[in-house]
Amino acid sequence: MTRQSVAEIRPQVRKYGELTSLEVEVAKANDALLILPVGACEQHGDGLPLSTDSIRADHVAMAVAEELAGSTESPNAFVLPSIDYGVSPHHGNLPGTISLDPRTFVDIVTTVAGQLCDSGFTRILVVTGHGGNIAALGVAQQVLLSSHPDLAFAYSPVSGLATETTAQLPRTEVSGHSGESETSQMLAIDDSLVDSSRLTAGATALDELSPRARLTRTKSPSSAVTFDRYADNGVLGDPRTATVTAGEDILGEIIAKLVSYSKEMLRL
Amino acid sequence: MTRQSVAEIRPQVRKYGELTSLEVEVAKANDALLILPVGACEQHGDGLPLSTDSIRADHVAMAVAEELAGSTESPNAFVLPSIDYGVSPHHGNLPGTISLDPRTFVDIVTTVAGQLCDSGFTRILVVTGHGGNIAALGVAQQVLLSSHPDLAFAYSPVSGLATETTAQLPRTEVSGHSGESETSQMLAIDDSLVDSSRLTAGATALDELSPRARLTRTKSPSSAVTFDRYADNGVLGDPRTATVTAGEDILGEIIAKLVSYSKEMLRL
Amino acid sequence: MTRQSVAEIRPQVRKYGELTSLEVEVAKANDALLILPVGACEQHGDGLPLSTDSIRADHVAMAVAEELAGSTESPNAFVLPSIDYGVSPHHGNLPGTISLDPRTFVDIVTTVAGQLCDSGFTRILVVTGHGGNIAALGVAQQVLLSSHPDLAFAYSPVSGLATETTAQLPRTEVSGHSGESETSQMLAIDDSLVDSSRLTAGATALDELSPRARLTRTKSPSSAVTFDRYADNGVLGDPRTATVTAGEDILGEIIAKLVSYSKEMLRL
Amino acid sequence: MTRQSVAEIRPQVRKYGELTSLEVEVAKANDALLILPVGACEQHGDGLPLSTDSIRADHVAMAVAEELAGSTESPNAFVLPSIDYGVSPHHGNLPGTISLDPRTFVDIVTTVAGQLCDSGFTRILVVTGHGGNIAALGVAQQVLLSSHPDLAFAYSPVSGLATETTAQLPRTEVSGHSGESETSQMLAIDDSLVDSSRLTAGATALDELSPRARLTRTKSPSSAVTFDRYADNGVLGDPRTATVTAGEDILGEIIAKLVSYSKEMLRL
Amino acid sequence: MTRQSVAEIRPQVRKYGELTSLEVEVAKANDALLILPVGACEQHGDGLPLSTDSIRADHVAMAVAEELAGSTESPNAFVLPSIDYGVSPHHGNLPGTISLDPRTFVDIVTTVAGQLCDSGFTRILVVTGHGGNIAALGVAQQVLLSSHPDLAFAYSPVSGLATETTAQLPRTEVSGHSGESETSQMLAIDDSLVDSSRLTAGATALDELSPRARLTRTKSPSSAVTFDRYADNGVLGDPRTATVTAGEDILGEIIAKLVSYSKEMLRL
Amino acid sequence: MTRQSVAEIRPQVRKYGELTSLEVEVAKANDALLILPVGACEQHGDGLPLSTDSIRADHVAMAVAEELAGSTESPNAFVLPSIDYGVSPHHGNLPGTISLDPRTFVDIVTTVAGQLCDSGFTRILVVTGHGGNIAALGVAQQVLLSSHPDLAFAYSPVSGLATETTAQLPRTEVSGHSGESETSQMLAIDDSLVDSSRLTAGATALDELSPRARLTRTKSPSSAVTFDRYADNGVLGDPRTATVTAGEDILGEIIAKLVSYSKEMLRL
Repeated sequence: MTRQSVAEIRPQVRKYGELTSLEVEVAKANDALLILPVGACEQHGDGLPLSTDSIRADHVAMAVAEELAGSTESPNAFVLPSIDYGVSPHHGNLPGTISLDPRTFVDIVTTVAGQLCDSGFTRILVVTGHGGNIAALGVAQQVLLSSHPDLAFAYSPVSGLATETTAQLPRTEVSGHSGESETSQMLAIDDSLVDSSRLTAGATALDELSPRARLTRTKSPSSAVTFDRYADNGVLGDPRTATVTAGEDILGEIIAKLVSYSKEMLRL
Repeated sequence: MTRQSVAEIRPQVRKYGELTSLEVEVAKANDALLILPVGACEQHGDGLPLSTDSIRADHVAMAVAEELAGSTESPNAFVLPSIDYGVSPHHGNLPGTISLDPRTFVDIVTTVAGQLCDSGFTRILVVTGHGGNIAALGVAQQVLLSSHPDLAFAYSPVSGLATETTAQLPRTEVSGHSGESETSQMLAIDDSLVDSSRLTAGATALDELSPRARLTRTKSPSSAVTFDRYADNGVLGDPRTATVTAGEDILGEIIAKLVSYSKEMLRL
Repeated sequence: MTRQSVAEIRPQVRKYGELTSLEVEVAKANDALLILPVGACEQHGDGLPLSTDSIRADHVAMAVAEELAGSTESPNAFVLPSIDYGVSPHHGNLPGTISLDPRTFVDIVTTVAGQLCDSGFTRILVVTGHGGNIAALGVAQQVLLSSHPDLAFAYSPVSGLATETTAQLPRTEVSGHSGESETSQMLAIDDSLVDSSRLTAGATALDELSPRARLTRTKSPSSAVTFDRYADNGVLGDPRTATVTAGEDILGEIIAKLVSYSKEMLRL
Repeated sequence: MTRQSVAEIRPQVRKYGELTSLEVEVAKANDALLILPVGACEQHGDGLPLSTDSIRADHVAMAVAEELAGSTESPNAFVLPSIDYGVSPHHGNLPGTISLDPRTFVDIVTTVAGQLCDSGFTRILVVTGHGGNIAALGVAQQVLLSSHPDLAFAYSPVSGLATETTAQLPRTEVSGHSGESETSQMLAIDDSLVDSSRLTAGATALDELSPRARLTRTKSPSSAVTFDRYADNGVLGDPRTATVTAGEDILGEIIAKLVSYSKEMLRL
Repeated sequence: MTRQSVAEIRPQVRKYGELTSLEVEVAKANDALLILPVGACEQHGDGLPLSTDSIRADHVAMAVAEELAGSTESPNAFVLPSIDYGVSPHHGNLPGTISLDPRTFVDIVTTVAGQLCDSGFTRILVVTGHGGNIAALGVAQQVLLSSHPDLAFAYSPVSGLATETTAQLPRTEVSGHSGESETSQMLAIDDSLVDSSRLTAGATALDELSPRARLTRTKSPSSAVTFDRYADNGVLGDPRTATVTAGEDILGEIIAKLVSYSKEMLRL
Repeated sequence: MTRQSVAEIRPQVRKYGELTSLEVEVAKANDALLILPVGACEQHGDGLPLSTDSIRADHVAMAVAEELAGSTESPNAFVLPSIDYGVSPHHGNLPGTISLDPRTFVDIVTTVAGQLCDSGFTRILVVTGHGGNIAALGVAQQVLLSSHPDLAFAYSPVSGLATETTAQLPRTEVSGHSGESETSQMLAIDDSLVDSSRLTAGATALDELSPRARLTRTKSPSSAVTFDRYADNGVLGDPRTATVTAGEDILGEIIAKLVSYSKEMLRL
């Protein structure tokens, strides 16, 4: 089809799933960036919801698309329907967790990305709110590199991007899952989703950990334990120090970095 | 854990993904019904969005949970994170469609349902906004019948339940995907998601169809064609006759039937 | 190869597996219909054999091919080697049942149909004597729609086609597997295969069923139970009222409908 | 269940699929031998049918069960429903061939044997009319050795057992598929299945072969070529010298050896 | 790339893995033979190491490449990196054994061979020191025959080739795994790898075996037992009679036969 | 078996594959650490061999085992047979590369580690000479965390550990695969494996790269390109500055860190 005027896309639409047949063709003609939020459904302690990682990934993805839309004459980024189940064997012993086999997760991601590439899109950015998806996303990237070498396929963590603002948090020695940063982000997104009265500290100091759990905190070599071996409540850090302001700062850094990266992808 | 007072669950929460660790244990102790919306991301003509089937499944699932919550002293049904990519080979030639291999779809559904059953839940109702998922859901049900025979696992279409209200629609001889019923439902849910100005009729009469497409309209034996063989715009019926009122009636019938069925599941 | 005279096929051959290399090329040049009988090896009560579903599928498939041959100047339909193991998790707790994983069943069907299409055939009709294969056949049809969109691939149940003659049977309120219709069909095909002295009624009335089994009899939403939850002998209905005459009528209706459908497929 | 009198089995039944629920329990209590015929649907030259290997496997399996029944007070061997599609990549270029992926074939065999073992049977003998299934049967045996180490699972070729009678055949230097032995066997089973007027010689001498095809005739190391590289008609040997008498002798030797082996299995 | 002088390959290199990028292109231009050693990591009695089969395969493969290099003006055969885990369910109950699922083994071999063929090589010879890999190699050969029909892919056992020298060994009636031949070969390769002081006889006579183990020694039909059913130490035969000289003779026969076969492959 | 004196293990043995049946039981009783070297077979420029990553992984693994043996009264670490094919889609366009599907690689690693754990070992350290295996190792770790939560399973890169010594190298702005560090390591291990006369620089500066290749050098988000998009020779950096001394320093740092980590694992 011939390239149509970009004005034909309803300017307020940010979601791929809200595009009509005609609009998706315009998006394709504009070689739009497609952002895929992926999350998890896993235990997040006594005060955070199971979908904490999905909610943050969705929030960030929409914010990035919104900023990109504001910076150009027409929308050039759309948020794909999210994948709300992730790879969570680390949390499988804790209440509420649902974990896909990483190979199934790879199948979903490579199918979605591969078909989009086959249909004409060339830029996909996956935003994962859950660190446990990183290995499977790495494998998906390798599978796609074989099958669709011309596709620019990138993936990014959420919290991990916020190096500067996280450094300013009052974090305990051991910190991470359901801790200060994640809780702050959730408070900033929608504090009604946090049961603040029940937030409790989990593992906070290395010398409280079992030897095997402590060894796992080493960066490399990489080992792993289920999170009930860190703390009964599955939490790393003390979420009670989380604040809305810290969450806004953290999310702001993440979104800014992804907007900047997205613009580079759009220039490819 | 001991059975806790149901009041501990924040009464406004309907989504499984918004439950905390403590709340999910209460839901389990109450043997709550879990509703899984599944949809599709596929071409829906010039006026409906790609996620039409997901949007309708989500809407129906949330309405059912809401009605069930209102009819009892505590919430006893929660909506699981939805699966927004479905099995759509019929639409693979038309813009925007992303289709999972049915075997991947089976893997996702059996993993989610199987793990929930392993953790203690016993009732799952899948609501699919997309008819193309029915075969894979049937296979998933068989896999689960082998692996988790005590799990009550049911699945239901959306539009297909509305037999009475659909019979009153002014439908063309050929009607279905992106036609009078689906468009009415979408108008009733959120008319900003419908580009009404671009709605166009697709295949409307049997004798306009190619012999093979016509044969496929026969109920049994079952055959299949890709939807571009019905009409260039992939539409069955004339969505221009759709109305908000009809959509509300159709959705009302669907929701009422699922509420009734859910109550039977909760009595098992 | 050039199109040969159809007389080269031995006129009495109905089975694909009895064709020689030369004859299969003639069949292909004539774009013959290939009929694939699929059945099951599963418990069928105290009086019917394990292969009841395979035997009926084979019988029907051969009768259809025979009638089609009689109605034209040359054979234009052949019966493929049957698949005699099906998807039977519902009967897995009852003696003698062997059940393929539905994904293996899909692999077999898509391989057979896909290779026949690759070699030049374009019309395949699957006749399943076992309802438990329907979901997997639906998935197979979707897989083939992606991989071989030009193949006309249809599938049909056996008993389910006999709407008119079945309505005239004296059936109990609950009826189906190993019941009045299946037993009548078996008596009509070969009464030596029925141990009439041991036929016993199974589940016959809805209010005798457990709540979960009763709920499963609802058409939609679809749920499932293993058949030992209906009745100890795995039977639905009272097979003692079955008669040869009823079986002949039922089979006659099924065969006539499939012949008519096959002729439509041959006109595509 | 308690061990019943063996007289309860209808004495004329040889097929597992013709057993009722009650009878299969008696067979199990007697620890009967189950014989699984597997074949192929593949090109067999201009005069033999595609199902040549299935027909011979079925014939041999039934004859073995018949002889075993005659030699004891009650039937102690039953023939399972056959698998009529095999692993035939060697014949994939020649008309009519349908070839399962060997991994699918392994899945079928291990499922059938594994479930029978789970249900209480302990002796399974596979009779393959097609040499191309041997490797996959070897793999199936290894899979079963891991999953069901107590199952006695054996497999046997058909033609390959007839060492003595085959040595007396007037065979050409190159001989095998669709050649003197297979054609003789088919003539002895049912000469209406052989189109004798069209039998033609294929590859008959080593020095007519291409170097690669000739190398493949070496026993070890093992290599492979597609059969169109041996001869245009896919035949090894000269089937025109086949006779009913030779076929009867060959089948007699095969059946006798399998009866003898089966008796050993029944004594385990 | 243009064909380069063969002298560019460092003449002492025999291993594919030691080739540089430039050298591998020369090897390809020369259509070199690639030899893939495959072995196992499985119990080999009290005196032989777990990698006995890998060590022998590597030794033979290197010796064949060496002899081929010496017989021509430039190296025309290279030894691929070996696969040191094999298919060993027979030994799974005995200490130290690691056994790949045969389907994984097939995946590895078909990937390695298929990619080499895609890149331009046309001759691959697999040398397996472990008989348990033969079935999976047969399946791999069939998969490759479908996907890469022009690839000459052969596989060979090690000990099995040594028919003449093995006939001269003083072997016990039952002999094989970890027995006279394997132990002799290991002594000849590197006697420091054999703990001679602990060599003990295992199963040596048919009438010492259980009926099922004895039946398995029959060539055809093929059955299987785990090796702890032959003897507690997993040994077949009496390795105490093994000698360096016998090992040298056996290896000499094997290498000579493979060199001869390789030359035939190189002439294809 | 009862715990034996550790002196029973031949003190010079470092390889798991060289253990006898008796010795492997002693190693298990001592709860020895098992080190699994994994590498790759992929293009490494004009001067390094295809197996560069395997050779370095083997070297490091053996050195770690050697040091651990020297530091205790008996060997407590053994090197498993290496996996010499890795996940190399990045190099698939360059000569000589053989790349396993990452899912096959996961299958191999989880099978080896899972069986060792089932048999009684509890500590496994994977040393990968190839960065492309990291994602698949992460997935394998997740699979094992579900199936074998008590297994301590760690994995480590080789070059990536040498942070201090690498910082002292004269490296170009772009550096990595086949560059200064890898080449130095190879020179230190065995300089006859390096064709020093043909070492050539590849991509060395960011502004020489295409935009997409340059973007890939960003750490997070993670993207990927095939290595022919960095440089025609597939090299990152200038290997001509590599020295034996630098290689010794780098390997020394890597080995020291892994020895230290291994001792921590042995104390778990």
